Amino acid sequence: MKTSNKMTVDIHSHMYPPAYVDLLSARSSIPMVRSFPHAPDPRLMLLPAEEQALAASLADPADQRLPGRPLTSDYTSLDRKVQFMDTHAIDVSVISLANPWLDFLDAHLSADVARSVNHDFSCMCRLHPGRLFFFGVLPLTAPLDAIRASIAHLGGLDCCRGIILGTLGLGRGLDDPDLLPVFQWLAEANLTLFLHPHSGLPNQVWGPRAAEYGHVLPLALGFPMETTIAVTRMYLAGVFDHVRDLRMILAHSGGTLPFLAGRIESCILHDGKLVRDGKAGDGRRSVWDVLKEQVFLDAVIYSELGLRAAVDASGSDRLLFGTDHPFFPPLTTAEDGEWESVRLNADAVVRAVGEGTVEAKAIMGENAVRILRLQETP
Amino acid sequence: MKTSNKMTVDIHSHMYPPAYVDLLSARSSIPMVRSFPHAPDPRLMLLPAEEQALAASLADPADQRLPGRPLTSDYTSLDRKVQFMDTHAIDVSVISLANPWLDFLDAHLSADVARSVNHDFSCMCRLHPGRLFFFGVLPLTAPLDAIRASIAHLGGLDCCRGIILGTLGLGRGLDDPDLLPVFQWLAEANLTLFLHPHSGLPNQVWGPRAAEYGHVLPLALGFPMETTIAVTRMYLAGVFDHVRDLRMILAHSGGTLPFLAGRIESCILHDGKLVRDGKAGDGRRSVWDVLKEQVFLDAVIYSELGLRAAVDASGSDRLLFGTDHPFFPPLTTAEDGEWESVRLNADAVVRAVGEGTVEAKAIMGENAVRILRLQETP
Repeated sequence: MKTSNKMTVDIHSHMYPPAYVDLLSARSSIPMVRSFPHAPDPRLMLLPAEEQALAASLADPADQRLPGRPLTSDYTSLDRKVQFMDTHAIDVSVISLANPWLDFLDAHLSADVARSVNHDFSCMCRLHPGRLFFFGVLPLTAPLDAIRASIAHLGGLDCCRGIILGTLGLGRGLDDPDLLPVFQWLAEANLTLFLHPHSGLPNQVWGPRAAEYGHVLPLALGFPMETTIAVTRMYLAGVFDHVRDLRMILAHSGGTLPFLAGRIESCILHDGKLVRDGKAGDGRRSVWDVLKEQVFLDAVIYSELGLRAAVDASGSDRLLFGTDHPFFPPLTTAEDGEWESVRLNADAVVRAVGEGTVEAKAIMGENAVRILRLQETP
Repeated sequence: MKTSNKMTVDIHSHMYPPAYVDLLSARSSIPMVRSFPHAPDPRLMLLPAEEQALAASLADPADQRLPGRPLTSDYTSLDRKVQFMDTHAIDVSVISLANPWLDFLDAHLSADVARSVNHDFSCMCRLHPGRLFFFGVLPLTAPLDAIRASIAHLGGLDCCRGIILGTLGLGRGLDDPDLLPVFQWLAEANLTLFLHPHSGLPNQVWGPRAAEYGHVLPLALGFPMETTIAVTRMYLAGVFDHVRDLRMILAHSGGTLPFLAGRIESCILHDGKLVRDGKAGDGRRSVWDVLKEQVFLDAVIYSELGLRAAVDASGSDRLLFGTDHPFFPPLTTAEDGEWESVRLNADAVVRAVGEGTVEAKAIMGENAVRILRLQETP
């Protein structure tokens, strides 16, 4: 591994191994992969918000407007991943399966698929020792025993540093008491949770004109709002107190948690029920405390303002650079060149904390090395 | 009017005139006001999220857990409003009907109720010339002609400086093309829009344990997310370009717009449909531009971090102090003393921009005087 004092680590970097794409290709409802005769690449349809476009496309095969996004080799090819890393001077990537992970699988399938996907990721990382690590997936639709076995499996894989997790949990969200043992097992195995959105918000909130705005509303607003709701529910349920060793990275700089933390705290202090229940008093760990003690934020926020707010909320020692590759490829310049989505996030770091500063080095790589033990090369 | 160089103006301050409370008291579904035998004050139930608590309470009259919040005289009495202003050294308040305004009224009623409510507010302001101004309400369930007449009526009322508006519009949201003439008429009448949330998000996103958390999730998260979605839909529909003279104050410092503006911009630049439609190109006014040119933010954000982000997004010349009175009264100290909800927001200003600075004076009052023409005392 490089030992120069300027290291770039990308902790928000996705892949769909070919076997997983086969699973999506065998499906007939979203999430799914499907080829269309007049499109060069198969289309990857992930979001509930894409159902309308899919139905329109199936109703009129001549319709040139395609649902979803092109499933290019950027999503499936390890060579393309490494090429992307080289182009952007990324030394290390912590790769993870992209949404919707295994959340749609029948219980009897999910444990086997989890083992297979985690094995695939482990093999990919071993091909590039020191450059690749990964967050695994859990078979959350399987019984708790199978989830526990999966955590044990992941704990034994050299390059695994945590798991990527959606907001559904066992089906009732992340404030579900039945999920507490899972959080406990993950903490005991020293596996960090990477909380990532997928479901967004119910389609009705986007209104009747949503399709005119492409994917902007569900991606730009639905995703970060989903993350914020999930982590606030965890906080209110006391999950962070129940499992003090739980460590969680929040995608997209916490969704909107840094900006709303003050309002959450005020609403708690002014809530009749919580005051009566003794849950609003002194001695309570506030949202601000959790942000500084158990939560880490990625730096995928695309603005100086957002990055500064994230630093204010969690500290520059708890922010982790990421790219969201292979999502958000350039549409008007060459895919093999520099990606604007990457540049926006790297520029935000420079603008918020200065170029080459201690804070910038921490956010761009050193924090990830420390927090995810990336110096421990297999 | 006071002419000292330190003036405090509260632009986020609500009232329910007695006639409006009568309307809510006559209803049998939320929004409604209802008395319970074991409660000293009637209960005010506003939020869709309160339906579950209301049903439980009606099913078991002995249940001591009451839905909603106490409807104290703070909501209805002008004397209490002025007393609150005096306690907190607030020189001027711009009062407005609280949610859900007239959005639940049948079309044939709403124009008359609007005229009556706006008349009530006008009379209250005349009792305290120079200390009180108001944002009126529009009969949005009535035909466009009636809405236009209501705008003309408001334009003729001395103390009216704008309207308070929810996110429903005519029923299809604020990106509805049929609403454009209303925005145009408001701009022509020099009336500022105060965009305020009410509906929040569909209950399902709060999960099965939501009731355990009191009102925290719908108020702390649902409200600001609703505002963010509404204004982003307006932006994507081009409303701000269509009506360049439209001026809009966003409640709760824009919901989450300052924090998410970077992500919205990136999602636009990386959206295949918007790029194909020519809606992502250069020359386009970005969300950042609209935040600095047509949008104002209130300073009701309860944290230094949030306030600083709001200043970064819109500028200290576009932020307006507010209290959200009579919501969020103190629960553990006397109601007649200082309110912590007010102190949190005033402290945030001092911490973010310094005490007594040019920026602090602007945010605490001077911006409101300039933007809402509060020096023009009737």
